[in-house]
Amino acid sequence: MTDKTPAQRRYARNRDLLITTAREIITQQGLDNFSMRSLAEKADYSPSATYKYFKNKEEILEEISKEGWEILDTLTITQTKLASASGESIYQSAVAWLKFVNEYPNHYFLMFNQTTKSPNPLKEFVQLASFTNLVKEIETGIKRKEIYLPIGSTPMETAFNLIVLLHGLSTLRLTKFAQDTQEFDRLSEKTMRQFVQYLTK
Amino acid sequence: MTDKTPAQRRYARNRDLLITTAREIITQQGLDNFSMRSLAEKADYSPSATYKYFKNKEEILEEISKEGWEILDTLTITQTKLASASGESIYQSAVAWLKFVNEYPNHYFLMFNQTTKSPNPLKEFVQLASFTNLVKEIETGIKRKEIYLPIGSTPMETAFNLIVLLHGLSTLRLTKFAQDTQEFDRLSEKTMRQFVQYLTK
Repeated sequence: MTDKTPAQRRYARNRDLLITTAREIITQQGLDNFSMRSLAEKADYSPSATYKYFKNKEEILEEISKEGWEILDTLTITQTKLASASGESIYQSAVAWLKFVNEYPNHYFLMFNQTTKSPNPLKEFVQLASFTNLVKEIETGIKRKEIYLPIGSTPMETAFNLIVLLHGLSTLRLTKFAQDTQEFDRLSEKTMRQFVQYLTK
Repeated sequence: MTDKTPAQRRYARNRDLLITTAREIITQQGLDNFSMRSLAEKADYSPSATYKYFKNKEEILEEISKEGWEILDTLTITQTKLASASGESIYQSAVAWLKFVNEYPNHYFLMFNQTTKSPNPLKEFVQLASFTNLVKEIETGIKRKEIYLPIGSTPMETAFNLIVLLHGLSTLRLTKFAQDTQEFDRLSEKTMRQFVQYLTK
């Protein structure tokens, strides 16, 4: 990094600032109101100047989505490390997931609701840190005789099932139940507890 | 119905035709391209004339969402009636749910991804026919000693868990995995099988 010229450093700094501005627009005005034009306006750039930093709107959204994954990964992985028993560790990382959704709804939307152009989305999905960490935790639990999977079921499939369940809860919370989170959160907690019970009993 | 005047019948017929046109626009051009203006254009109405039938765009979307629930309810309930064992019956209605998502993606989006203004969305949710039918099927399975719920877990919570799981699979299939459905469908099938195994073992 030390071999960057002042111009390169300035470019990187401006680019970061534009991402911060984009994040502000999305948080305050919603995804629908974000465009290269609204970004230029808020950042006091000419519309054409923003294109020196980003090809298009999608490139910025992709950066914010990546940032979301980094936060989610950090939160869930920290939680699995805090608990000593595998079941509790998995439960706490599930709680951390739902907290993230509550605090970063727009990031979550970008991370999941965009149609990806990846040629192999499933392969990419199972390589996400939140995913591989969960698989590792399930494997540890099996070794420690704290987790028991039904015959024919693998740690990878079990992690997939939990993430599908979390994603179901997350999207319902952000849409249908956005006005009634208290009761929904109580039910969600029970859903996650039952999933962990199913693994540990 | 027989006491309707010719004018009332004409009004109802025009309204139905406008809903059909709206459905066509959404299916062919996507939700983003649907507006009262695009509806008027396609239906050869003046923009103001469409407002005689619908207050706004949301009222039409609400009708299409309702129509989606009717189709989904019919499909899942038919499936639970076809199978004789409760486990298989639940599995087949889950398969029917995912087939519906595949065939009516825009309806599904409207049914779930709109933020509802209902004061008690959870109460409304558990009164949906697809939901109550599932609860009934679980209760029947318990009586017949085909389904065993863990201590502390109710048929209503179990139905909620399955629908959350199905919704997680459904939204992932329509977004992240829209380009790679084959592998994803194989995994989804296994997820649903494992859920039924969990209930019946």
